[in-house]
Amino acid sequence: MSKNIYKTNVLKLNHRPERDKRITTHCALVGRAFLADSFYFSGVNDKKLIMTIKNISKNWGGKYNIKYISKPIEFIKKEKKKNTIIIHLTMYGEKIIDKIDELKKIKKKKNFLIIIGGPKVPKEYYELADYNISVTNQPHSEVASLAILLYLLNPESLINEKFNNAKIKIIPCKCGKKVIPF
Amino acid sequence: MSKNIYKTNVLKLNHRPERDKRITTHCALVGRAFLADSFYFSGVNDKKLIMTIKNISKNWGGKYNIKYISKPIEFIKKEKKKNTIIIHLTMYGEKIIDKIDELKKIKKKKNFLIIIGGPKVPKEYYELADYNISVTNQPHSEVASLAILLYLLNPESLINEKFNNAKIKIIPCKCGKKVIPF
Repeated sequence: MSKNIYKTNVLKLNHRPERDKRITTHCALVGRAFLADSFYFSGVNDKKLIMTIKNISKNWGGKYNIKYISKPIEFIKKEKKKNTIIIHLTMYGEKIIDKIDELKKIKKKKNFLIIIGGPKVPKEYYELADYNISVTNQPHSEVASLAILLYLLNPESLINEKFNNAKIKIIPCKCGKKVIPF
Repeated sequence: MSKNIYKTNVLKLNHRPERDKRITTHCALVGRAFLADSFYFSGVNDKKLIMTIKNISKNWGGKYNIKYISKPIEFIKKEKKKNTIIIHLTMYGEKIIDKIDELKKIKKKKNFLIIIGGPKVPKEYYELADYNISVTNQPHSEVASLAILLYLLNPESLINEKFNNAKIKIIPCKCGKKVIPF
């Protein structure tokens, strides 16, 4: 979905369908709406989640991918070898406001992998990350942190929504619902 | 938490503890982190949710309120009589980017009530709202929409976090976790 040839992908660690079903779905949809290219998740291989996101992409357009990753550490190490920049979102990280300009420059030249975890992410992920970034140092939500980071990287996500081959499209309106089925 | 005397409060409609537990908690915490003053919720009166948010505010500081609202329509009507501006976040609404400057101006003179619902919000809420606002017209997450709206209203939330009487504070760092207990 990115305008340039470099990709921004998201990796959600340790998905547990009973506990995280809606949170992981929200993270995946935020990735799509704010113009990431792919959503990866580790933990439990949840085929229902994959179907949900694929169906939404089919109806609402675009080329968003979703994929289960069985070995996230190995996956990240492989990405690093391919020169991908690893950004780990954590409330303990450096303030996004101090790093966003640097990240926007790098985004023009390299692929990004944004990792979202939670409070119990093992130390290894912090060490593998090129950037540990906080969206406020207050407890809140990986859904919100991902949205803010992607919005700051892709502010055009609020202006032009270019999702090719959409079957459904909303016409923004003052009151009520206007939907065009193509 | 707002710097001026006017308040920004959030109302989450139709909370269902089994299905929405983590989503409502995330919305409440996003409200706090991005400088809203109070979080209200209708649906089921979930005392565990109230305790969770009160405990977080106690440890992390600030004066964030949380309250159950049994009759949300009546509550909104009362707020309107008090001249509060009602903003309903919905994927069908007018684009936030077209309305944010107007909202920022109004925020200096009036209280805001931000309503977050979901796909099945009754028509009455759309009609009661002064603004139906969309954060993209793509399906994603009320957690993310709330975060983006509050961030755009309060960009200082990413810079200075002023939460009085905090018992815990994070020192942002490149790698690892630095926490100061006061």
